[in-house]
Amino acid sequence: MRFSRRKGVRLALGCGLLPAVAMLGVTARIVFYRQHDDAEHLERKRRYLERVAALRPAGPNVVLILFDDLGYGDVGVYGSRAIATPHLDRLAREGARFTHAYSPSPYCSASRAGFLTGRYAVRSGLDHVLSNRGSLFHALQKLGGLNTRLPADEIVLPEVLRAAGYATAVFGKWHLGDASPSLPNDRGFDAFYGLLHSNDQGAPPVWNDREVAEKPPIDQSTLTRRYTERAVDFLAANRGRPFFLYLPHTFPHEPLHASAERRGTSAAGLYGDVVEELDDSVGAVVGALERLGLTENTLVVVTSDNGPWFQGSPGGTRGRKHHIFEGGMRVPFIVWRPGFVPAGQVIDAPVIGLDLFPTVLELAGLPPPDDRVLDGESLASLLAGGASPPPAREICFYLIKDLQAVRSGRFKYHDRHGVFYGNPMDWPWGPMRRQGPWLFDLELDPGESYDVSGKHPEVTARLRASVEAWEEGMAENPRGWR
Amino acid sequence: MRFSRRKGVRLALGCGLLPAVAMLGVTARIVFYRQHDDAEHLERKRRYLERVAALRPAGPNVVLILFDDLGYGDVGVYGSRAIATPHLDRLAREGARFTHAYSPSPYCSASRAGFLTGRYAVRSGLDHVLSNRGSLFHALQKLGGLNTRLPADEIVLPEVLRAAGYATAVFGKWHLGDASPSLPNDRGFDAFYGLLHSNDQGAPPVWNDREVAEKPPIDQSTLTRRYTERAVDFLAANRGRPFFLYLPHTFPHEPLHASAERRGTSAAGLYGDVVEELDDSVGAVVGALERLGLTENTLVVVTSDNGPWFQGSPGGTRGRKHHIFEGGMRVPFIVWRPGFVPAGQVIDAPVIGLDLFPTVLELAGLPPPDDRVLDGESLASLLAGGASPPPAREICFYLIKDLQAVRSGRFKYHDRHGVFYGNPMDWPWGPMRRQGPWLFDLELDPGESYDVSGKHPEVTARLRASVEAWEEGMAENPRGWR
Repeated sequence: MRFSRRKGVRLALGCGLLPAVAMLGVTARIVFYRQHDDAEHLERKRRYLERVAALRPAGPNVVLILFDDLGYGDVGVYGSRAIATPHLDRLAREGARFTHAYSPSPYCSASRAGFLTGRYAVRSGLDHVLSNRGSLFHALQKLGGLNTRLPADEIVLPEVLRAAGYATAVFGKWHLGDASPSLPNDRGFDAFYGLLHSNDQGAPPVWNDREVAEKPPIDQSTLTRRYTERAVDFLAANRGRPFFLYLPHTFPHEPLHASAERRGTSAAGLYGDVVEELDDSVGAVVGALERLGLTENTLVVVTSDNGPWFQGSPGGTRGRKHHIFEGGMRVPFIVWRPGFVPAGQVIDAPVIGLDLFPTVLELAGLPPPDDRVLDGESLASLLAGGASPPPAREICFYLIKDLQAVRSGRFKYHDRHGVFYGNPMDWPWGPMRRQGPWLFDLELDPGESYDVSGKHPEVTARLRASVEAWEEGMAENPRGWR
Repeated sequence: MRFSRRKGVRLALGCGLLPAVAMLGVTARIVFYRQHDDAEHLERKRRYLERVAALRPAGPNVVLILFDDLGYGDVGVYGSRAIATPHLDRLAREGARFTHAYSPSPYCSASRAGFLTGRYAVRSGLDHVLSNRGSLFHALQKLGGLNTRLPADEIVLPEVLRAAGYATAVFGKWHLGDASPSLPNDRGFDAFYGLLHSNDQGAPPVWNDREVAEKPPIDQSTLTRRYTERAVDFLAANRGRPFFLYLPHTFPHEPLHASAERRGTSAAGLYGDVVEELDDSVGAVVGALERLGLTENTLVVVTSDNGPWFQGSPGGTRGRKHHIFEGGMRVPFIVWRPGFVPAGQVIDAPVIGLDLFPTVLELAGLPPPDDRVLDGESLASLLAGGASPPPAREICFYLIKDLQAVRSGRFKYHDRHGVFYGNPMDWPWGPMRRQGPWLFDLELDPGESYDVSGKHPEVTARLRASVEAWEEGMAENPRGWR
């Protein structure tokens, strides 16, 4: 075979052309990626918020304290012997403590989307973990056509409350998009101070509204205190009007950082120091409400965005963060409002973070949006000491877009599908071995260890049909538009 | 570029030759693979067994009942509310129950190698899970130069006891090699009935000594009963002489099968049926010992080869089978010998299945081998109601050849290395994120959730040094020859 310069050039061009064209295509897809917002529902959202703005809210102030990766077993009143949380314990003693409350998702962004929209994160297409703009993962998410921010057409709680005249602020981690129109100040918050992502994603700056307040590398050890100070100042400044304070702490997400004063003080090591400092923060916020005479008209909710990750305790349940087993989604959930929530309630009814949105709307006397499904249900009557919700209620456990389990009453049905199914903890053997379907009786078996589908064929069939109905509904109308 | 037939043939040959040669090399390596047995220690083993044969054993009969994948929380006396195990509970009530007993490894073959040799499985090179002869995994293990059977130079408990005049039998799952010289009947057992591998590996036949007793597909639902009947017959046949009965059940390893009588009777579904049938089996064996008047001179040990897999309960501990977290290796461990083991003992001292070999040797008055390290320590005095072993004792947690954790007293130190490190349960995020080193205080934190290395730097440094010393020792003399 004779080789000539001309042949060589042709060969090189031939070999190079295909990957070059492919890479150009990939680059174009990433560069020209634009996330779609639904024009019709943007308009209907605008009209809804106008309608809300015409009303006078009857309801309480709202303080939502959201921990990041705090486990079910990390709080004294939830059984921790290693971590002291006197302030959280006090709120539980004087308010309601839920024993079967679920975060909307077993990881960050999706859970936050659920808390603020009252809808499963699959509806907003925010069922994954958002990455930093400019990062490789961010580019890959664009390449895959995933949402990189909460869609503008979604209605979030601060938008509703702000329209209704509430002062609104978020101090902490946002994680619902790092570009307009999905920045905190775009989405109903008058004030923002904190991080746009998790504290392990790149080298995050601290933001003050739309400006960088601290360039990286930031001092993470003072974050909890900075958020708390701003929270207390916000309460004092807005004592005379309704307010919504959203305090999504950066910790105990890794990397762990405690202040110099707290470091080394907990029996549970650095993780314990961090959680005890978060408990201090709860104490400071509640103390401010007391000093300001706001306790009776303020609903305080404290919970976590998902189960514990590498450290932290799932309280003896199965699994951790990223799992749809209980340990991934069962979280502490404490609600405090003296005079409205009877003291010392322990509520075993299954609830989910999606319930917060309709609960606050009901308490505030505001109508829900009428152009979309809300997946949450109001807990207002339950909190006031009323009856438990009907046992037919179903709670869905999604991993990304995959509905992997449904809880109804004391039963939790695990479907079988997806490589992530159920048991990534048994990696590398898990994905090779399909498991389920499983039916767990959480009363008999809180550790999700014994499949009793054979003993309860009717329950199994009913819940399998539910999963199929949910899947069909999602396939037909994922956004839940009406 | 002109194409001729000759050029085409040359090109095809050129392209084909390299992979063909490589495949021939691979094939040759697999076909001509021969596992090495150490000639010197084969000879010293022979001499040791001769020395033992000259002695009259003073000790008791031994019954070792080993469950497959039974979890720490699957037994009534270990806290199960879902599974009824009256016979196991009775043995615990009348004997000793260990609360911190570890299996030698978090999976099958390696654990069995540990139980029968009294040495960590890395010493015998049996630190992985053996596959069926002829299977792809088996070929890959040969290609990787791994042992495919327990080396002939290793001394196993039945070989010692048989030399000392015991009748010996194994009814159940072997999993230490499916070819001579490592078949059950090669390794000290007069009688064998059962499976050479796990019940999910290929389509296993049932073996009776060296013959196939039942061709696949076998009826797994009667396996527990078949093993039990043979065990009871063996006890009756050997009532007049010392005996060692090894009963390594096939279950509750998946796939689960219970007899027609047991199916559907447990509150915990099929898994519960299977475990309750195993408890029936324990009752039948103990009943036979009572009828035969053998209880006072028979040491009965019941335990599991590792934590629970997909179903089964780790009793609130962290992790499952394949993990070096407690849930992967902490197992039920009950020892019963009325008159010798005081009734109702609950022993919290950390022990490991490797201890069985030296314990039985001490009770039988037999000398240990002098040409090799034993990693186990005799529990004879502890069982008789004596003092706990010195707290300095270290227990190693190996994953394959990787020493990932060491327990000493109330502390467990998790080292950081290896892609499998610590948290495969957090896959797919785990392997990307190195964790540790961690120090867990199991008294404060039984769920291994809080790293307290910062609070106990001296303990951390001591245990890190231990890991390094173990690793150096293993690198220099992995077989532990003396």
